[in-house]
Amino acid sequence: MKLSRKNFLKTTGVVAAGLSFGITPKFSINKSKAGKMRLTFEPYTLQLKHVFTLSTSSRTTTPVMLTQIEYEGIVGYGEASMPPYLGESQETATKFLSKVDLSQFNDPFKMDEILAYVDSIDVGNAAAKASVDIALHDLVGKLIGQPWFKIWGLDKEKTPYTSYTIGIDTPDVVREKTKEAAEFKILKVKMGRENDKEMIETIRSVTDVPLCVDVNQGWTDKHFALDMIHWLKEKGIVFVEQPMPKEQVDDNAWLTEQSPLPTIADEALQRLQDVIKMYGVYSAINIKLMKCTGMREGYKMLNLARALGMKVMIGCMTETSVAISAATQMSPLVDWADLDGNILIINDPFNGAIAIDGKMRLLDLPGLGVEKK
Amino acid sequence: MKLSRKNFLKTTGVVAAGLSFGITPKFSINKSKAGKMRLTFEPYTLQLKHVFTLSTSSRTTTPVMLTQIEYEGIVGYGEASMPPYLGESQETATKFLSKVDLSQFNDPFKMDEILAYVDSIDVGNAAAKASVDIALHDLVGKLIGQPWFKIWGLDKEKTPYTSYTIGIDTPDVVREKTKEAAEFKILKVKMGRENDKEMIETIRSVTDVPLCVDVNQGWTDKHFALDMIHWLKEKGIVFVEQPMPKEQVDDNAWLTEQSPLPTIADEALQRLQDVIKMYGVYSAINIKLMKCTGMREGYKMLNLARALGMKVMIGCMTETSVAISAATQMSPLVDWADLDGNILIINDPFNGAIAIDGKMRLLDLPGLGVEKK
Repeated sequence: MKLSRKNFLKTTGVVAAGLSFGITPKFSINKSKAGKMRLTFEPYTLQLKHVFTLSTSSRTTTPVMLTQIEYEGIVGYGEASMPPYLGESQETATKFLSKVDLSQFNDPFKMDEILAYVDSIDVGNAAAKASVDIALHDLVGKLIGQPWFKIWGLDKEKTPYTSYTIGIDTPDVVREKTKEAAEFKILKVKMGRENDKEMIETIRSVTDVPLCVDVNQGWTDKHFALDMIHWLKEKGIVFVEQPMPKEQVDDNAWLTEQSPLPTIADEALQRLQDVIKMYGVYSAINIKLMKCTGMREGYKMLNLARALGMKVMIGCMTETSVAISAATQMSPLVDWADLDGNILIINDPFNGAIAIDGKMRLLDLPGLGVEKK
Repeated sequence: MKLSRKNFLKTTGVVAAGLSFGITPKFSINKSKAGKMRLTFEPYTLQLKHVFTLSTSSRTTTPVMLTQIEYEGIVGYGEASMPPYLGESQETATKFLSKVDLSQFNDPFKMDEILAYVDSIDVGNAAAKASVDIALHDLVGKLIGQPWFKIWGLDKEKTPYTSYTIGIDTPDVVREKTKEAAEFKILKVKMGRENDKEMIETIRSVTDVPLCVDVNQGWTDKHFALDMIHWLKEKGIVFVEQPMPKEQVDDNAWLTEQSPLPTIADEALQRLQDVIKMYGVYSAINIKLMKCTGMREGYKMLNLARALGMKVMIGCMTETSVAISAATQMSPLVDWADLDGNILIINDPFNGAIAIDGKMRLLDLPGLGVEKK
């Protein structure tokens, strides 16, 4: 029998899963040239529910860039979230995205080639690059008719519980915030200040849930760090993120070797090529799509860390449900998640993956599973 | 607007790509229980075009096991190829596959969970495990309605040229075989015998095409190996596979450091956990689906090797177009391919990916892109 697509489909009964939705296909091709991809983007400002306090600054908004890639009437959504301390802004993203010419590609499925091109346009600009990667994944997932967790062979029941951050504040406020966070099964505390132990004691006065700790490079003495970790273990802490400055490689390696709790690299790494350098220095890596240029590279980092026997956390910035949904697609593979970004804003333009009673919920919808509100 | 699948599809115009094929969906569910997967398998004997000679044996057939996974009337094809020297047989595969109970899974998309279960049934049995992995990939690709190279975001124009092996023989026969292989853009020679240099000179007397060399651990002295490699470089050889016994780790590392040609690990590795051990010892790894339990792990090995800055070759056994098509799906990512397995047999029950004028050709058909003849 001659091999042709038509015969093949007839004889094997192959049909696309999307057909079972029972709708009539209807491509609208009026908005973009047939067979061409078109990237558009618009700045947007996320309004935070609470003032966000880091050791160096406070803020009530986060600038983002919302992206769309349109192809034969189908739209993929993406996002760049750009907290000021990471160096990108709506201005730099506008400059970068203006250079991205997707019209040269006639097939969105050639993700490897398309994203290599995007990466080659300029150095840095990780969040802006991620906004293209995420929109392309949403588009291709919709063309395939499947969500990415299914394309990757994952089980949506295995999504993790997300941690929820209790901001640094007075004991009364911390107690109040902790009580309000009762739905979350794991809480996160930022450390590296004078009152570290007091924060933990205050939270422990109202709850016994597991806690995790993000030091943000705040400890500089390895012996002090180890003492703190021993104390934290007694208090039911499950891991310690970026305990010391990333430059202190030998100290971090020593600490990881001695530590009774897993240590997680955050500031110490950005992209795929950094993962191998974390081996033997930390127990785990924290993958953030906005730092690693998106889902394609993030997924590779996850598999690389696993192959190296390391544990994996997936994190986020303040983000809409677009970027949170992108990260959640691969979350059934991680040990820990910090995906509370879309819970913390009051003007999310999208519905999508979100924590329900603390557990990340994925939807059985194609691509990222997001829709505009 | 309320978030429901129906509304979502209406508003975004999402349709599965398969719809554009313009056929009416028709699931036939009479052959397997709805929502259950059913694995079946049958022994098959591949008849070789030429006598296959290794340093220790010759043979004219290769035993394989052909597998099928059926789900809601759709069939995915798989294969285990078991050349005798690797330790598996139709008997061991029958024993292993009889233990695989896929009826406990109601969703073929949960590949991570399904393949972890298959791997956990027993140690070893890599080819038998691969026969399940490959059939599952074919099935899921057909359910998605896309070939795996597209699901992985690859460009089918970027498939490599396959090498073609010139068997060891008398100079007259070698010259004849080399002339017959004129369509191939790279030839492979097995070495590690007394007449190594004579073989190369004989081939060079009739062609200038690039050659690669597989020593199959045949050299034991590192200085001799380095001398040979220098000589081979002068003769236009592009790489040297498994130059010395895999146990001589330090010697292989020394050789790789000194060698003007890339060295490739073959016998030295089997699965994902071995890749990191090859780092610094060889320049590249040779991935074979029958040794690494299939496409899912093979694809991870490929990305891991890349992340480590190593080069990648993909190889095969004597195989039908099923296993060759499985390997070819990821071949746009490799540096070198040795996928001549289905060219070397006379009773291939399948059509699929195959070398055309030496270059691997992928078909735009769902799953592996194979069909029964």
